[in-house]
Parts: sequence; C-alpha cells; structure tokens
Amino acid sequence: MSGEGDLLDEVTPDLVRRVEAALAEERVDEVRGLLTGLSATGQASILEQVSDDERDRLIGLLKGDLDPETLVELDEEVLEDVLDQLDSKDIAAAAAKLETDDATTILEELPEAERREVLAEMPAAERAEIEHALAYPENSAGRMMQRSLVRVPDRWTVGQVIDHCREATDLPEDVYDIFVVDGEGRLRGSVPLGRMLRTKRPVQILDIVDPDIPSVPAGADQAEVAHLFRDQNLVSCPVVDERGRLEGVIMVDDVVDVIDEEAEEDILKMGGVGTDDMYAPPIRTARMRALWLTVNLATAVLASLVIGQFEGAIEKIVALAVLMPIVASMGGNAGTQTVTVAVRSLATGQLTAANALRFVAKEAMVGGLNGIVFAFLMGSAVVLWYGDWRLGAVIGAAMVCNLLAAALAGTLIPLGLQKFGVDPAVSSTVFLTTVTDVIGFLAFLGLATLFLL
Amino acid sequence: MSGEGDLLDEVTPDLVRRVEAALAEERVDEVRGLLTGLSATGQASILEQVSDDERDRLIGLLKGDLDPETLVELDEEVLEDVLDQLDSKDIAAAAAKLETDDATTILEELPEAERREVLAEMPAAERAEIEHALAYPENSAGRMMQRSLVRVPDRWTVGQVIDHCREATDLPEDVYDIFVVDGEGRLRGSVPLGRMLRTKRPVQILDIVDPDIPSVPAGADQAEVAHLFRDQNLVSCPVVDERGRLEGVIMVDDVVDVIDEEAEEDILKMGGVGTDDMYAPPIRTARMRALWLTVNLATAVLASLVIGQFEGAIEKIVALAVLMPIVASMGGNAGTQTVTVAVRSLATGQLTAANALRFVAKEAMVGGLNGIVFAFLMGSAVVLWYGDWRLGAVIGAAMVCNLLAAALAGTLIPLGLQKFGVDPAVSSTVFLTTVTDVIGFLAFLGLATLFLL
Repeated sequence: MSGEGDLLDEVTPDLVRRVEAALAEERVDEVRGLLTGLSATGQASILEQVSDDERDRLIGLLKGDLDPETLVELDEEVLEDVLDQLDSKDIAAAAAKLETDDATTILEELPEAERREVLAEMPAAERAEIEHALAYPENSAGRMMQRSLVRVPDRWTVGQVIDHCREATDLPEDVYDIFVVDGEGRLRGSVPLGRMLRTKRPVQILDIVDPDIPSVPAGADQAEVAHLFRDQNLVSCPVVDERGRLEGVIMVDDVVDVIDEEAEEDILKMGGVGTDDMYAPPIRTARMRALWLTVNLATAVLASLVIGQFEGAIEKIVALAVLMPIVASMGGNAGTQTVTVAVRSLATGQLTAANALRFVAKEAMVGGLNGIVFAFLMGSAVVLWYGDWRLGAVIGAAMVCNLLAAALAGTLIPLGLQKFGVDPAVSSTVFLTTVTDVIGFLAFLGLATLFLL
Repeated sequence: MSGEGDLLDEVTPDLVRRVEAALAEERVDEVRGLLTGLSATGQASILEQVSDDERDRLIGLLKGDLDPETLVELDEEVLEDVLDQLDSKDIAAAAAKLETDDATTILEELPEAERREVLAEMPAAERAEIEHALAYPENSAGRMMQRSLVRVPDRWTVGQVIDHCREATDLPEDVYDIFVVDGEGRLRGSVPLGRMLRTKRPVQILDIVDPDIPSVPAGADQAEVAHLFRDQNLVSCPVVDERGRLEGVIMVDDVVDVIDEEAEEDILKMGGVGTDDMYAPPIRTARMRALWLTVNLATAVLASLVIGQFEGAIEKIVALAVLMPIVASMGGNAGTQTVTVAVRSLATGQLTAANALRFVAKEAMVGGLNGIVFAFLMGSAVVLWYGDWRLGAVIGAAMVCNLLAAALAGTLIPLGLQKFGVDPAVSSTVFLTTVTDVIGFLAFLGLATLFLL
C-alpha cells in the first residue's frame, strides 16, 4: 500500500533522464527494467516526456512488454505516434486485452485501412463488440460504453442473481449495479450491489429494483453524458437504444476523462490553440496557430486603419500616440475578464436566457464602476505627466467609454455566438479585442480631435 | 426512467420565468409546487438563476421543503447567501440528513460562531463526525472523505462479512469495496463487492483481499487526490491517518467536483477573475477585478514610457504610430498561445524539468517560423500601403523579434514561476504582455529610428 505522494512522483524528471541515458547507451535490459516496473500511467508519462526519436526507440524495445493500458493513458497525439510503430498484430493483441470502450478509443485513432487489418487479427467476439461501438458517432455515449455488464431477467429472485454471478466467468470485476431487463431486453431498472448483498435470497429482484434510474441513448454526446454524471453524482449509467433496450454501461472513470478533456478544450480554445498542440511537430503547431494569428492580424490592421484616420491629430499632438495603447489595452483586459466569466458560465449552464439580462446589466455596472476608477487614476496621471488637464479629461472619458464597450461586448458577443450555435470559447476573444481596440482608439483619438485641436 | 435530454432540460429558462412570475404575484402554492417537483440539482439551478432578491423570498417560502442535497449543489457564493436566510435549526436539520463530507462542505461556509450554534443543534454522533472532519485543513482529503464505510476484521470469512452486511442497518447504500483492517485498525486492503459476491462463504477474506490498493493520508491536498483518482481510474479510495489506520473513504463523485473546480479555477485565473465572480454583487466584482486591471495599467504605462522615448521619430513619421500596435498585438497573441499550452501542460504534468528544454526549443522554432510568415505578410502589406520598402523591412524585422520574444517569454515565464512556487496560471499573462508590448514597441520604433531617420 502506498500514500499518494509516491504515486504522484512515480515518474520524476530524474527517472526520465535515467531512461534517456540508458537508451542513449543502448543498455537495453536497464531500459526495459525501468519501464516494466511502472504502472500504465507511469509508462505513458515516460513516453510523453521523451523526444519523438527516443519514443520510437523505446517502443521498438518494449513492444510486447508494453502494458495495453498504457495506450489508453497516452495523449492522443503521442498515441498516434506509438501506433505508427506497432504492427497490426501487436495492436490487435493489446486491444483484445482491453475493455471494449478502451479498445475502441485506440482503434478510432487508426486510419480506416489499418483499422480493418487490426480488427481482422482479433477474436470474433471482441471484433464484433468493437465494430458495434465504432458504428456510433465519435464522442457519443455508444463509443464510451462498455458492453460487459451484469444483466438479469426481471423474473429472477435475488438468490438466482447471486448464483448467476458466482457461476459466470466473464463478468467484469468492477461491478456496482445489476441491471434488470424484461423479456425484450428493455431496461427495467438497476439494483446496487450493496443492496443485493443485504437482501434475502427468496426476494424477487423486481421488488428491490430502482425503476427510476437515469439512462442515456447510445447517440447522446459525451459532453451531455458528463453533465448528467456530474449533476446526478452517478458512478455508472446504462446506455439504451431507441427502443429502450440495454446496450451497455458507462463507468464514471471514463467520464472523468471526458470532463478533463472538455475543460482542457475550453482553456486551449480561449488561448487560441488546438487540443493536440503540445506534442505536435513544430511545423504543424506553427501552421495551426498561424490560422488564429491571421485572424488577429486582420483585427490589428482594422484597429490601425482607425488610427490612420487620425494621423493629422497625432502629428499635432504626439502624446496621443504615446497614450493611445493604454486605453485600448485596459479595454481589452477588462473585456477578457467579462468574456471569461461569460464563456465559463455558459459552459456550466449557470448563464442562460433566464438571467442573461441580469448578467449584462451587472457587467455594465462593473465596467462603468471600474471605468470611472481608472478614468480618474489615468486622468490624474496624465495631468501630472503632461500638465494638460484637457488631455487628462479626454483620456478619462475614453477610458469610461472603452470599459463600458468592453462590458457590453464581453457579454453580448458570447451570448450571441451561443444563440447562433457557434462555440463561444473559440471566437469570443477575437471579436472582443476587435471591439475594444477600435472603440479604444476611436474614443481617445476622436475626443482628442474634437476637444484638443 | 428518462433519457438525459429530459434531465438536462429539467430547468429551462421558461421554467425560471414561471417561478419568477408566480413569485411576483405571490402565488405561493404554485411556487412551492414548481420547486418541490425538481431534483436537488434542479432546485439549485433555479436558486442560482433568479435575482438575489427573488432567491431570498424563495428560501423564505421553502425552508423545510428545501431538499438538503440542494445546498450541496449550490455555487459557493449562492450557498452563503442561502445560509444567511436559514436559522441554525434549519441548517442543523439539513446537515443531519447529509453524508459527513457534504455536511462539512456546508458548515465550512459558516462563520465560526454560527457554525458552533449549528453543531450544538445536531445529534451527538453526527456532530462528532463533522467536528472530526473540520479539524482537517480546508481542501484536504480529511474534509472530502465520508466516515461511513464497511470495515471488517482481517480474521473474518466471506460468510461472516456477508452476514455483517445483512445485519448492519447503518451501512451506506453506495458501497463498492469492503475494507479489511487488522486488530489495530490499520488498513490491510480492500475487496471489491463484486468479487465477494462470487466467492464461497468459507473462504478467508484475507485470501481475496487486494493488499496493494492506493490510499491517501488525511492531510493530502484535494488536487493530489483528484490526480490519483484520475491516474488510477479509482472509484473510491481509503483515507488513512499517519499510522496507517483507516479513517474514511473518498468517493469518486466528490472527486469529480474537485476536478471541475480545479479546471474552472485555471480558466478563471488565466482570464484575470476570481472563482466567486459570477454571483458576487457588482461592487465586489468590480473591486476584485480592479486589482488585476491595476497590474495591467502598470504594464500599459510601462509600454507607453517606451513609446515616449521615440516621440521624435513618431513626429517625423506618423505612420509609425499607426503601425506600432500591430507588432505589439501579434506578439501578445502568439505569446498567449504559448503561455496557454505551457500553463496547461504544467498543470497536467506533461511539462516537467525533463522535457522543458525541448519545449522551449520547439516554441522558439514555432515563434521563428510564424515570425517569418507574418513578417513577410505584414512587410508586403506595408510596402503596398505606404510604398516604402524600408518601412516594410523594419516592420518585418520587428515582427520576427517580437514573435521570438513571445515564444521565449511564453515558455520561460511559466516555467520560472512554477519553479519559484508561484501559480503560473495567475501571473504568466501579465508578465508576458509586458514583455511583448515593450519588445514590440522597442523593436519597431528602435529599428525605425536606426534605419529610417
């Protein structure tokens, strides 16, 4: 038994370096010894942290010794790389040892042709289960579920169910619920294992069943499944087809991965990067990010076209050029705060049509308040700096305008995108900075033109 | 039984509006009917979406009818508000109906004096358990765990364990594992319920125990606990004291909440807002955000001091003022992409001392590549726009400089902060934009001064 300290530190930077050193000097047995001593998560962590080149050599060395679970734990990008190194026999052997849902996760990374090869190498029963799962759309409940579960007819007694569990050899170890189905295979409810254990053998299973358990259709999106698990604190959830027949079960550990993925995606999207960024080769990363930078370039050019309209004013008062980025930058930052809260609250369902108006009003108030505070701060600083109270008044007024614009844009843009079915996490910030840059420069330079020239 | 569609839509904006309308017209029975028909999550969602004022009135109406689980599901800020409306008797009654860990979550929101009052109203046994949990630091395993679990001596047989489960009345329903302890109460391992069910009665429990299960010390941080559950795909995990004695058990559903919280915190921190932002009153939100805006103001002023050094150049070539925000903005965006990946990879343990150098090198390469691409793009645009190839060359060179600076700052700042024990999610972006603004203006205006004047 070990405390979590040990587990967290299973793979230290030092261990990675020892693996790398042993690999460089071709001490094959040492490399194999270091890796096979680790858990699947540990092996995966090593494979993720070494260079592409080292990874390929490690896979070449390990092959059969690789824990199949390691493949499941790998980052998607690294998994693709590792699968490239394995032939279809190796992959089929690994997949056969995994639960259907995990095997499916791995096989869905393969190109169509290779996937068929791997499936051909697998035992018929497992092949059928995986093909069944692959028939469902990606990121659906059908792909997440495992097919092995305890399913009993609704006319059995508790004793019969217990005997069935004792005799069956192919039951999963991590059983938490017994699922009860009718003659047609339709789900009638579930019985937690703990309750079964405490019930006398002659009792009818239907007498202790929970009929009102939640279930999900096989086509449901994984994000919705995660939402359901979270809201209802579920540990497992049955999956049914369109006629209510029991298809499989989704376990909470797979949902934890989905929750992680979804939060991760939101963070990365808001930062303008894709999910497979960390392990992608530099050229691909550069190309993926260039897309986003191009959009930002267009935004920046638009802002500079606005500045271009005021060249005359800047020529006369060069201080305008010095001060204008401050107004734009404060608007951008205040707007980012608002957008972050809006995107997050939309994602968690805390911001809806019912309280949208209240949210916009609150943000406008916050923007107005901070607008006044920073108008005063910056205005006074400019008066002290340039000794010109009119310039101070102009930058103050521009600050209030831009922080109000930031509050409105920061709320209305994500709400609008969501309404039109566009993911607000991806595009809100670009639109926002376009607004805060344009309004920032326009308000400051425009007011300066009106009152200072 | 219901599909998840129904469950997700339990609280529609329309339902919120109906509750609000009934409340406004004081149709008390209708309000009560609408709310008591909902699950705890649904009740919580309504309480979160109505205005502060409406919430207070709802609580006044519901009081005893409020599902105690609703309190557990509420956002922290809203929970505080709701607790303010309830007297200590109501809170004690609700807490007594909850699991220890959930009751603790609620009581830890109360001020010291009121907490003592509430505890005094509770039955002695439950009070002792909650006081025990509250003795552990906030966000520790000790606070997350529940104390009710199935604990059996290591000299029992499977039959004795089953009989014990049948006879005991106070066992939790959601049991997944039986914990085996020695004479001193020290954890010897666990047996999954499914395995017990399949084993013959005379078998010694020690013969089927998993001795190598992970456990966490009661003082461990909740983030580490979440990490462990995720890495090992755990459903429950025993908590032990410093002598290895079994203290309680942490269930996966509480860990899901922690994982959510941690991801949420990272997103909000990177956006420059606090975790209790959405439901805080405007003045408090404004004050919390002003802190961050002040730091940004300092950054912006620093950048504008740099511009101030080049007033002479801007007076001669006003186009410099028009173009300079483009260079700064592209650097800021490219740097944000890098910082996002760095912060996320540090949080998930994918970026460590072992591969930091490789990461910095890759990012520098990406920055260099995109620097060249956008230098060419922007340089050509400027040549076409202003008909001045030297101005185009200067903006191109500044672009390459700033995107390289962004790559280095975007990697080295979060790595450095992490090394010195500062949370990279909070402060990386400020330092980054300081660098990209300063280098952006300095490179562009500096090169212009050298080559164009």
